[in-house]
Order: sequence, then structure tokens, then C-alpha cells
Amino acid sequence: MSLRVIVDALGGRLLGNADLLIRSLAPLQTAAPDQISFLSHARYQSQLAQSAAGCVIVHPAFETQVLSREAAIITDDPYLYFARLTQLWKRHHADSRGPRIHPSAVVDPQAVVADDAQIGPQCVVERGAVIGAGTVLKSRVTVGENCSLGARCIVHAGVVIGADGFGFAPHQGQWVKIEQLGAVRIGDDVEIGANTCIDRGALEDTVIENGVKLDNLIQIGHNVHVGAHTAMAGCVGVAGSARIGAHCTVGGGAVVLGHLTLADHVHISAASVVTRSILQPGQYTGMFPLDSNANWEKNAASLKQLSRLRERIKALETEIQNNKEI
Amino acid sequence: MSLRVIVDALGGRLLGNADLLIRSLAPLQTAAPDQISFLSHARYQSQLAQSAAGCVIVHPAFETQVLSREAAIITDDPYLYFARLTQLWKRHHADSRGPRIHPSAVVDPQAVVADDAQIGPQCVVERGAVIGAGTVLKSRVTVGENCSLGARCIVHAGVVIGADGFGFAPHQGQWVKIEQLGAVRIGDDVEIGANTCIDRGALEDTVIENGVKLDNLIQIGHNVHVGAHTAMAGCVGVAGSARIGAHCTVGGGAVVLGHLTLADHVHISAASVVTRSILQPGQYTGMFPLDSNANWEKNAASLKQLSRLRERIKALETEIQNNKEI
Amino acid sequence: MSLRVIVDALGGRLLGNADLLIRSLAPLQTAAPDQISFLSHARYQSQLAQSAAGCVIVHPAFETQVLSREAAIITDDPYLYFARLTQLWKRHHADSRGPRIHPSAVVDPQAVVADDAQIGPQCVVERGAVIGAGTVLKSRVTVGENCSLGARCIVHAGVVIGADGFGFAPHQGQWVKIEQLGAVRIGDDVEIGANTCIDRGALEDTVIENGVKLDNLIQIGHNVHVGAHTAMAGCVGVAGSARIGAHCTVGGGAVVLGHLTLADHVHISAASVVTRSILQPGQYTGMFPLDSNANWEKNAASLKQLSRLRERIKALETEIQNNKEI
Repeated sequence: MSLRVIVDALGGRLLGNADLLIRSLAPLQTAAPDQISFLSHARYQSQLAQSAAGCVIVHPAFETQVLSREAAIITDDPYLYFARLTQLWKRHHADSRGPRIHPSAVVDPQAVVADDAQIGPQCVVERGAVIGAGTVLKSRVTVGENCSLGARCIVHAGVVIGADGFGFAPHQGQWVKIEQLGAVRIGDDVEIGANTCIDRGALEDTVIENGVKLDNLIQIGHNVHVGAHTAMAGCVGVAGSARIGAHCTVGGGAVVLGHLTLADHVHISAASVVTRSILQPGQYTGMFPLDSNANWEKNAASLKQLSRLRERIKALETEIQNNKEI
Repeated sequence: MSLRVIVDALGGRLLGNADLLIRSLAPLQTAAPDQISFLSHARYQSQLAQSAAGCVIVHPAFETQVLSREAAIITDDPYLYFARLTQLWKRHHADSRGPRIHPSAVVDPQAVVADDAQIGPQCVVERGAVIGAGTVLKSRVTVGENCSLGARCIVHAGVVIGADGFGFAPHQGQWVKIEQLGAVRIGDDVEIGANTCIDRGALEDTVIENGVKLDNLIQIGHNVHVGAHTAMAGCVGVAGSARIGAHCTVGGGAVVLGHLTLADHVHISAASVVTRSILQPGQYTGMFPLDSNANWEKNAASLKQLSRLRERIKALETEIQNNKEI
Repeated sequence: MSLRVIVDALGGRLLGNADLLIRSLAPLQTAAPDQISFLSHARYQSQLAQSAAGCVIVHPAFETQVLSREAAIITDDPYLYFARLTQLWKRHHADSRGPRIHPSAVVDPQAVVADDAQIGPQCVVERGAVIGAGTVLKSRVTVGENCSLGARCIVHAGVVIGADGFGFAPHQGQWVKIEQLGAVRIGDDVEIGANTCIDRGALEDTVIENGVKLDNLIQIGHNVHVGAHTAMAGCVGVAGSARIGAHCTVGGGAVVLGHLTLADHVHISAASVVTRSILQPGQYTGMFPLDSNANWEKNAASLKQLSRLRERIKALETEIQNNKEI
């Protein structure tokens, strides 16, 4: 693909040789003269000078630093440009699509699959499920009874949508199952990572709004509501009936307990546990700092006496105050 | 379904119109006049007055508050009644069962599947596996060689029973595989959530006793023993050879290290790490409290000096004591 | 299998009855006279005296303690010997292999599967994937486009190799997908546990080197590099572009944040969060100590004031110093 083709498709201001043929995309450090790369942040600019990339995508602020190169593309948001370039690249290099419904998939006759949706190998689409236009289920995805996906969703391998939520009533030391009568409703442009699970609601539906991005191995409990354009990294667990706002981010391995509310624009750091509702936007963290095991052992032992230490400080303060007054 | 049908099936004392037709079940806040709801706990009683539900299931203590309603059902345990109602509802509305063994499932001829068990699409049941009466494997479940499930189990999509446990002997900087010669033995009335994994034992079996309920994305290591009627929420990890008692609960994202023993009636809070055996019943917790990221950074920095802070407190105490004695 | 057969195959010095027939392998505590067991560590030696095992595998240091037994095998590394015995046992008792490619598997005609590799039921092997000699995909494994596995790998059920990495560029409050153009490259002798996910790289490949052992439900993000003979326990999450050295171990439920570097021989304790690069070998930990819930509540409350407590200690020290100087 020549640079001319790229700029014609994606815009940006091209400096240098428009006929340069690009073999592939690469990071600055490893890019060769027939590859294209990008500078997403000023802190990587030392890599720019050393890069052998044939073309680099940069912000106008770096224009003077790329004038001596064979080629460069100037754009206000190089990272976004790069994202769009990956999409262009994928479209150009994609082979012909597979079949609309792979013959190994099991699709119930009472499921509704949009004409241009795609159901990959070994998928299971149950009765009453609805798969929207342009949505792609990769291999081995299960979409349970009456669950729906909007348009242009991407669902990776091993995902389970619509397993029963975890609901039981205790009775004489045993657990009586609460049948989960709701479903899962997923909006448009949602991406769901491999082996992630989204449970059906108990009475009403579990809801994932438009533009949500979920990484791999995430657990979304029953009746959860995830607001539009929220993104969660891998291994997150969201317990039942939590209500997460729009434009939130949840770091990898974080846990959100049940029945909590997170406002829009709340950002949870990786591996943090949300134990109370958060009604103010911002970044929230709760994570034991890593240390050498020897130091950790000392500090962890003290931690178990922390409230006692606090009392000892209080006692010292009182004593010194008394001494003064004497 | 009329209220008369419900009370005939499940008992309880009906007040009001027995002919009221119920369209579906709903929470108090959203229920309409053709829906039935329930009050499970006194703390939600403010919702009761405002609910438009046609019928509410309540404890006798709330009888006076429902007398003016079109209908109510009085029962000593409304949550249990609700659970049973979901089961009644599901039975009434279930379509005819699918095939006993879905044609896409791969069931070894040397596996034993009870006549009224059900094996869903894309499942794999290996040689020597035993599937008990009334047990249902939803889609894409693997039951490995010689593993057994008792009666009336429910196994959700993507579950893997009987993968190899994680066992290796170190040898000259490499890992030599310990073949896992045991199996997995699962009792009656066990429910296993989507994409959960239960590994086979190294020499003896991994055992899950009757009535255990496991949520999604749980890891149960080799040789683990989980006692009867214990429940674990999503994303829990139980390392090899741990022995967990009966009637325990383990909160979401918690980790139980290997070779530990938990007594009966031990309750582990979400995201806590069990690093030692627990021989007394009770609730146990270990979780870094969430805070704004700015506060967390300050406190986490101090935490890494906690044992030093403790020494400084000790020094202060000594000094003040010395001053006194002078 | 007689002891003679075992020692002929695996070496070691046999004491006692070489004709003893062994029915199976068992732990010391439960072994019967027709079973073989082993003593892996001196701390279990009390079990040795009480064991009814027909034969025990022990270190030369315990030779005098086994002289009165019917049989024993003396070897310098009993645990390694036991590992090899499990392998011998498995080979002897294995039935004839299944088909090379199970008929229910979906293998793209443009994938390359070595002659003695084995593809289990319901697997999906996409175009351009390469499966090395002797490698076994158990049931329901997905190997994505252009991803490769070396020789003698074992991949357990539900594994997803080569789902898209989690990459998006933010744009006007929404997420623009970065197509993941790299693949996954896996070395020889790698074992991958059930339902584990390894994402494809964004531009270059995600790499898992020779001899790596991954347990179940692990998430490996895009562009991660895992060095040779590193082992990770269940539920670990490794975020994108992390670089983990050789001969490392990562405990269950630990999280490694993105773009970090771990040197060779770094050992991370279970449930710890790695938030910075670690360039020195050693054991590292960060985990809130478990306590009774009541104690935890007191200490957690104090923890949120820890940096304030530190300031109070500083103030006390200053005051006492001032008093002295007066």
C-alpha cells in the first residue's frame, strides 16, 4: 500500500515521497524503511530520531523533526490516525469473509440473525436470541435464550452471554435456586473479550450500553447495568445489580461489589475493590503496594495492629499534653 | 397464571383477588398491576407502599400494610417463596425439552449418561465420565475422562471439569510434568457457573460435595475438597489441595491458597486472600480499602514504612517513660 | 506393574521385593500395600512410618527408615522420580490415541498441523495457524489466524489463543478500535491451562517462550513476552506489553500491569499486584493480610489515615526533641 493510498483514505498532511510502498505497520523502535510507524506521545520522542521507519505519523509539533525523513504524515491525533490505519490495513488484507453462519454453529431456528451478521465455528445461539447487523461472533460463543446484541458488535471466542445469574435463597442450610427469568441486552458497537461472561438478569435484564468495551475473562453479574462507552480491562468482576456509569474505566483485576452505583467518568485502578458507591467522577484506588517479601512481612504484621498503633499515638499525644500543662 | 394457581402450588395465605392474572415477576420498584413482587427484608419496606405490583409476597409482620392492595400472599419466608415461584414460573413457561444429547455434542461411547440427563450443544463428554440423573450440561461444557457428576446438577456454558491439575517437578531449571491420575467427583444438586474450571486430582480425586454452588470463572485446583452446601461467587481461585468446609461462603475474587483447611461455616469476604488455615467459623476479610487515588498514594507510601513507624512509636514511648522516671 | 518394570524404566536403587505388583500411586497417608508412594520432603517423614504403602520412593537419607518395608526405591530426587513415574503410568495405561484431528474440530485448510499433533473435539484452528509436532489441543481450543505453537505443547479445554488484544484510541468520548495485526508465537513444551487466554499482538507478536507453564483462567495481554520456563498459577492477569523474564513464578491471582519488565528469576506471591518493573531477582509480595472481619474493619479504617498518623508521630518526635533542648 502506498502512502498516497493511505492519505487519500484517512487524510492528514503528507510530507515526502507519496509513492513509498508500505509493507506493514511497526513500533518506532523496530520499524524498517518499508514500514510505517507513529509517535503517540512526546515522551517517546527520543525513539523518533533513532527510528528507521520509512514514514512516521506525528503531531504538527514534531514537523521540524521529520523534515529530513523520506516521508511523514502530519495529523492532530497520531494515535487515532494509527487506529484508523490499522482498520484500513485490515480491510485491505482481509480475505473473503467466511460463511454468514458457519456450518458447525448451532443456531436455533427461533433466533434472529441479521443478514450481514456473522456466526463463527462452534457457536451456540439459542432460541429467541437476536444478533444485530454487522455483529460478529467469533468461534465458540454462546448467546443464551432471548439475549440480544445490537449492531457492529465483536464477540471473541469462548464468550458466554446469558448464563444464569448466581441467585439462591438460603433454606435450612441449603440453597434454593432462583430461576433467572431476565435476559441480557447489549447495545451497538460493543466488543467483548475472550471467555468473558455476562449473566442474564433475575427478573429484569442485564444491560450493556452502546460502545462498551470489555476485555477477556470478565465476569458481569446479573442485573448489572454498564453505561455507554465504559471500558473494562481483563479479569474484572462486577457483582450483581451494580450500576456502572458511562465513560468509566475499570482496571484489570478490579472487583465491583454488588448493588453499588458508580457515577459517569469514574475510573477504578487495577486490582482495586469497590466496596461503596462512588458518586463523584475521579480516579479511585485500593491496592496493597508491592514490596520485597521480607519488607512486606514486617509491614503486614504491623498492619494487623494498626488501630492499636493509632491508640498508642493518641496516648503519647495525651501524655505530652499533660506534661506541658504540669 | 392466576394467583390461585400459584398458591395451590406453593402454599402461603392469599389475601384479596385469587383470580388476578399475573403476567410476570418484577421488583417492587418497577412492578405493574399485572405483576407479582415480594418484600424480602424490612429495609425495603418503603418500596412496598409505593409499589404498583398487583400482588406482593410479604412476611406476616407486614400484613396490615398490604390489606388495601388488590392481592397479597403472606408467608414466613418471602424470599424463599419467591425462589420457588421463579421455579414454578420456569416450569410453566418452558418449551418442550431439547434432545437428551444434542447432535453436535461429542459423547464418548464409554461415558455413562443417565436417561434423563441432558447434554447441550457442542459439549464434550470423555470416556468413563458419568452424568447423573436430571443433570443438565448447557452448551460447550467439557467433562473429562472418568469424572462424575451426581444427580440434578446444572453446569453452565464453557465449564471445564477435569483438565489436568497444575503439577510439575522442578529439574535443572525446567518443569517436569506430573501426570494427573485422579479425576473429579461432583455430588448431587451442584451448580457450576459459566467458564468455571475444576481440575482433576494428581493421585486422588478433586471432590465437590452435594449442594455446592459455584459462580462463573472460578478456578478449583487439583485435590481440592469443597464441603456440602458451600457457595462461591465469581472469579474465586482455590489453589491445590485446599480443604474447604461445609456451609462456607467465599466472596467474589477471593483467593484461597493451597493446602489450607477452612472449617465449616467460614465466610470469606470478597477479594480477600486466605493465607492460613481457618479453624473457627466466622467472617474473615483482608482487602485494601478503596480511596481517592491521591489519598491512596499517600497512605500506600506510608504503609511501606509501617514497621518503621511502629518502631518510632516504641521509641517515643520509651523516651517519655524515661523522662518520667527522671 | 511390578517394581522391577518401574526401576528398569526409571532407574533408582530398589530395596526389597522386585516382584511386588503395584496397582496404583497414592499419597503416603492413604496408600495401601499394593500402592506406591513417595516422601518428597523431610517435613512429611512422620507420615512415612505410618504409611501402609507397599513401596516408598525416598532420598538416601531415609534409607534406614525403610529397611523393614516390603520394598523401597532410593533416589536423589524422589519428587522428580515420582513425576516420571506418573508419566510412565500414564503411558502404560493410556488407551489407543484418538484420531489425529477429531471430526468435530474445525481446521482451516490453510492451517498447518504436524503429522503427530492431535486436535481434540470442537477445536477451532484458523487460517495460517501452525501446530507443532506432538502438540495436543484438548477439547474446545481456539487457535487464531497465523498463531503458532511449537512442539510437544499441551493446551487444555477452552483455551483461546489469538483473540484480539484490547486496544482502542479514545476519540470524542468513544473508543476507536485498533485492529490487532500481530499474532501469538508459542515455543516448545508449553502447557496452557483450561480457559486461559493469550491475546494476539497489536503490531508485533505476543511471545511465550519454551517450557512456560500457564495454569487455568490466566489472561495474557497483547505484546506480552514471557521468558522460558516461567510458571504462572491460576487466575493471573498480565497486562499488555509486559515483559516477564525466564524462570519466574507468578502466584495465583496476581496481576502484572502493562509495559513493565520483570527480570529473570523474579517470584511474585499470590494475589500481589506488580505496579513497577522489577529488575532484581527475588520474592515480591503485596497482599492485605487476612483477619477476622471485626479486626479488619478497625485496621482498614486506620489505614485510610496512615499518612496522617505518620505526621502525628513526626510531630511527637519534634516536640520531645524540643522539650529536651529546653
